[in-house]
Amino acid sequence: MQIENLSGTTIFEPSKETKLKKTWREHLIGNPLRTADAPHQTISKTIGLAVFASDALSSTAYATQEIMFILAIAGTGALGYVFPISLAIVTLMIIVTISYEQTIHAYPGGGGAYIVARDNLGELPAQVAGAALLTDYILTVAVSISSGVAQITSAFPLLATYRVPIAVILVGFIMIMNLRGVKESGKIFAIPTYFFIFAMVTTVGIGFLRFFSGSLGVVINPPEITLEGTLGVVTPFLLLHAFASGTSALTGIEAISNGITAFREPRSKNAGITLIWMSVILGSLFLSISFLSGKIHAVPSEVETVISQLARTVFGGQGFLYLAMIAGTAVILIMAANTAFADFPRLSALQAGDGFLPRQMTFRGRRLVYSWGIVILAIFASLLIILFKASVNGLIPLYAIGVFLSFTLSQSGMAHRWWKSGHLKKDEEKVEIGSVIHYDKRWKFKMVVNGFGALTTFVVMIVFGVTKFKDGAWIIVLLIPLLVTAFFSVHHHYRSLAGKLSLENFHSAPRVKRHRIVVLIAGVHRGSLAALSYAQSIGNDITAVHVSIDPGESEKVRAKWDVYGDGTRLVILESPYRLLVEPVLDYIKKLSDIRQPNEMLTIVVPQFIPAHWWENFLHNQTALLLRFALIFKPGLVIVEVPYQV
Amino acid sequence: MQIENLSGTTIFEPSKETKLKKTWREHLIGNPLRTADAPHQTISKTIGLAVFASDALSSTAYATQEIMFILAIAGTGALGYVFPISLAIVTLMIIVTISYEQTIHAYPGGGGAYIVARDNLGELPAQVAGAALLTDYILTVAVSISSGVAQITSAFPLLATYRVPIAVILVGFIMIMNLRGVKESGKIFAIPTYFFIFAMVTTVGIGFLRFFSGSLGVVINPPEITLEGTLGVVTPFLLLHAFASGTSALTGIEAISNGITAFREPRSKNAGITLIWMSVILGSLFLSISFLSGKIHAVPSEVETVISQLARTVFGGQGFLYLAMIAGTAVILIMAANTAFADFPRLSALQAGDGFLPRQMTFRGRRLVYSWGIVILAIFASLLIILFKASVNGLIPLYAIGVFLSFTLSQSGMAHRWWKSGHLKKDEEKVEIGSVIHYDKRWKFKMVVNGFGALTTFVVMIVFGVTKFKDGAWIIVLLIPLLVTAFFSVHHHYRSLAGKLSLENFHSAPRVKRHRIVVLIAGVHRGSLAALSYAQSIGNDITAVHVSIDPGESEKVRAKWDVYGDGTRLVILESPYRLLVEPVLDYIKKLSDIRQPNEMLTIVVPQFIPAHWWENFLHNQTALLLRFALIFKPGLVIVEVPYQV
Repeated sequence: MQIENLSGTTIFEPSKETKLKKTWREHLIGNPLRTADAPHQTISKTIGLAVFASDALSSTAYATQEIMFILAIAGTGALGYVFPISLAIVTLMIIVTISYEQTIHAYPGGGGAYIVARDNLGELPAQVAGAALLTDYILTVAVSISSGVAQITSAFPLLATYRVPIAVILVGFIMIMNLRGVKESGKIFAIPTYFFIFAMVTTVGIGFLRFFSGSLGVVINPPEITLEGTLGVVTPFLLLHAFASGTSALTGIEAISNGITAFREPRSKNAGITLIWMSVILGSLFLSISFLSGKIHAVPSEVETVISQLARTVFGGQGFLYLAMIAGTAVILIMAANTAFADFPRLSALQAGDGFLPRQMTFRGRRLVYSWGIVILAIFASLLIILFKASVNGLIPLYAIGVFLSFTLSQSGMAHRWWKSGHLKKDEEKVEIGSVIHYDKRWKFKMVVNGFGALTTFVVMIVFGVTKFKDGAWIIVLLIPLLVTAFFSVHHHYRSLAGKLSLENFHSAPRVKRHRIVVLIAGVHRGSLAALSYAQSIGNDITAVHVSIDPGESEKVRAKWDVYGDGTRLVILESPYRLLVEPVLDYIKKLSDIRQPNEMLTIVVPQFIPAHWWENFLHNQTALLLRFALIFKPGLVIVEVPYQV
Repeated sequence: MQIENLSGTTIFEPSKETKLKKTWREHLIGNPLRTADAPHQTISKTIGLAVFASDALSSTAYATQEIMFILAIAGTGALGYVFPISLAIVTLMIIVTISYEQTIHAYPGGGGAYIVARDNLGELPAQVAGAALLTDYILTVAVSISSGVAQITSAFPLLATYRVPIAVILVGFIMIMNLRGVKESGKIFAIPTYFFIFAMVTTVGIGFLRFFSGSLGVVINPPEITLEGTLGVVTPFLLLHAFASGTSALTGIEAISNGITAFREPRSKNAGITLIWMSVILGSLFLSISFLSGKIHAVPSEVETVISQLARTVFGGQGFLYLAMIAGTAVILIMAANTAFADFPRLSALQAGDGFLPRQMTFRGRRLVYSWGIVILAIFASLLIILFKASVNGLIPLYAIGVFLSFTLSQSGMAHRWWKSGHLKKDEEKVEIGSVIHYDKRWKFKMVVNGFGALTTFVVMIVFGVTKFKDGAWIIVLLIPLLVTAFFSVHHHYRSLAGKLSLENFHSAPRVKRHRIVVLIAGVHRGSLAALSYAQSIGNDITAVHVSIDPGESEKVRAKWDVYGDGTRLVILESPYRLLVEPVLDYIKKLSDIRQPNEMLTIVVPQFIPAHWWENFLHNQTALLLRFALIFKPGLVIVEVPYQV
């Protein structure tokens, strides 16, 4: 349907057939959604908890064990420090939660570390936060999936050899779910999240009952400890190192603040409540697991996870309840990766919108999700899984440093924001890039809360970086500056392009004054005559050019051209070294030397279009080679005239 | 320099600068050679032996050992059969040599199995011979290089872990030598070939002296036998199987008949003499090695080659003479691959010239060699080496079947030719595709010689195929028919293309009657105005088309176009599903529906040309996507107008 408006512009609506075509894509990810459908794709608190909390909650599945791995270097006697260290981590968690609750209310439009840093600290800290978060999301997927697969292989040791392919297939599955769109994937993931919470609460509940009734006992047939040390001495460095490993429990806590816009109105309130729920559940489960694991003398091992040891001790064997608990843990871990699949595309779209990532990341795909971000996340996470052979223990040293860097930047930004708020007059407003600052009478208190959060997380980041530097943290310490440099290069490109394309001080494009046309012919046949015919339709200053490799062949071309060439002049380029492209370039260079200003040169190349793709290998791709050789020359256009065979 | 001739055609000679540019390519493979230099690139008998005989001679390095590998299945007692089997193989060799000597004189222009079969048996047998020979050449490279590396690792066991990379690097080295051209590579390879012959003659000479003086003894510290069997019974099947393995000694014997044109005049005589020299040296060395290896109780092993065992027993240890012998053997094996590098490109150029392989294979590169064939051979041989982990024992079952298939076809062809010759009158001539047949009074004798050769090699091929079928010969039995099918598909393509391009019954190309031009614009900026300006220079029926994803953005485009669009009409395509290419295809389809005959449609797409290649990832490659989507539509041309940023 065509709608002509007054200014003479025609608006063209797509035809019905185009809309209704169903391919494998539609079957896999669903029918395309119209742009107009966008605002309805928001979610309730209950589904929001499932979508955004699975990452944070699932870290209970490995945080205790990772603390134990480090303490075991000093011998099993040192495992008594697990509970005190866990208490310290939960304290840190409370500080971070309060900090982020303040952020959510200040940034109802979505206030991840990136936005907060950009608003309050400037472009460089913002891009650092962006780099930290993007790497962190990729690691979330790799770590969660690897840990999920480790739970499965604890129960079914025969599958241990296939853990890398299993992990990669799972990443692919989550990718497809997310390409279908956030609401539906929310529904799919709600059931397992709540099932996990229920299974975990049941396990620690029964565990505490049996502990207080004195019938809990210890792990029967514990697995072999991986890396047991005989050091015997617990050094402060070791305790800090163990603490750093345990901070992986905090990863994912920032997810909600990035995704506020996905919540139903009132967004901030709903998101804030969900955050507090999440922290309460996370903190109590983590403490309970750390406490009970110590009591049953669980040991850190690559063969059987601590969660598996705890569950079979509490339930007195590997019966139905044990399997339900393992299944719940495995599924939540696999679903935790989903949090990153909700956040990575959103953040990369934000950064791309600001011109720091390729603009394609801002395009919403057929299902209104940021398809590019989803696919890129899946690819990088799969690569990490393959490189680290799906080992959680190998990936952990890379993990939390980015998280704490973003925490620090976000909370410094918030502290600065409260300081600015306190210096406004009552009822005065200050407009920042991403939000509006109002005067807040509790600004001093709030500034201290966020400032303390920033300081704490900064110290934790330094501890993490130092204690885990040689285990792998160095990779991230190197990677983040590289990423930030890349972001700024991209930004520079877009900015300089915009300048060069700008129509300021521009009145009209220079008219083409003369238009020379060169038709390349390898032989005289229907294909080259079709090209000549096209050349004649676009201009009248036409030269046919033939590269002569075999003098006999060229003589034939010349003779045939006399008959069929329609009087067009023919230039034969001698090529004693049997080259095809170089003599043409040489000739074009000579033409260019005598060119006038605003003279345009078009090279017309006949191109066979064979019936089968493989038949392309049977021909010289001269047009393609010329395109690559000439594309940087101004005032020169290459036209392939297809000739269907 | 331009030379205008009387008919108005301009002949253009390349400028000096173009000729003298030196890049890494010139440094690696030498300065380009002019086409006119071609005929001088021929070689003498002495160099011809080095170039074409290294393959045949080098098989003495593994043929004896491969016989032993099979016999050892019946226990070490069965190794006594090595010498009788070797005698049978030498008899076969004499038959084949006489057959080929006749061929060389009948085909002074080069008479490989392919040409002989094509001339005398028809197209299908010729292509079968071609397929057999090409696979065989690839295997020659893989087997020779692998065996050469095995000699090196016999002397230096520490290198055993790196045998695959060493082998692949060696293939690359020979490739570069051959890209430099046959004459120079001949010189490079002459010294090692003669060094090998000298070292081998010295070894077996001293070996026989010590044997007859009774001081030879047996191998000290023999390596562990790979695959020793306890069967104890020598079955006829086992003997045939061992014989089949030993026939690898004959591979390469046909090389000279393919390469006659590389010899100096009188070609046939020089080539024939070289062939006889080669067979005499090959036969006597092979028999001597088989005899002496039996006497010293050498054993087949993957750890140490039989040649290494023989050399250290003859020389009484691993001193200078041992090392010289191993070095000579390793080098000749590596150089043997060079024979295939001389033959594969020559044969593939022949087949390509007949239209059964991509035409590019007939192009002579900068150094007048068939560069495509050389590079393709190197790639496939490297892949085989990687797949079979450079194991000679693994590759051998694939090897000789193609050789014997081509022997059979070549000699059947020759037998048929003598039969035709006998039915001519004296002094009568019959012109075949590739040669002229004269009456020959000894035709009956010659026919029997070639016929007997054909029969013998056919029986050997069947024996080989049956005894080695499950070890790997099945791959070749499957591959050859597939290749032949591919050759005929290529042939069909070229034939049907020639028919469709033919100017028979063709008078002049249809004139373009109407020329519509569509300019795609994503925004209004200098790039899109440059495209508009180009469109205006090629026609006047111009429509600007904009795909609307964001209505606000489109409104801006419309308003700006009113100012800068030079009055060109604008069509806005709505895209509710945020697609870019599909709405354009939809619109073009509508235009096509109302198109008149001989109406041409040109789509002009502005294309940014960024300063760095990676910046291309920051833009939609709409032009490229449209090209792929529209290339099959007739009467439609896509023009990218580059805009350098």
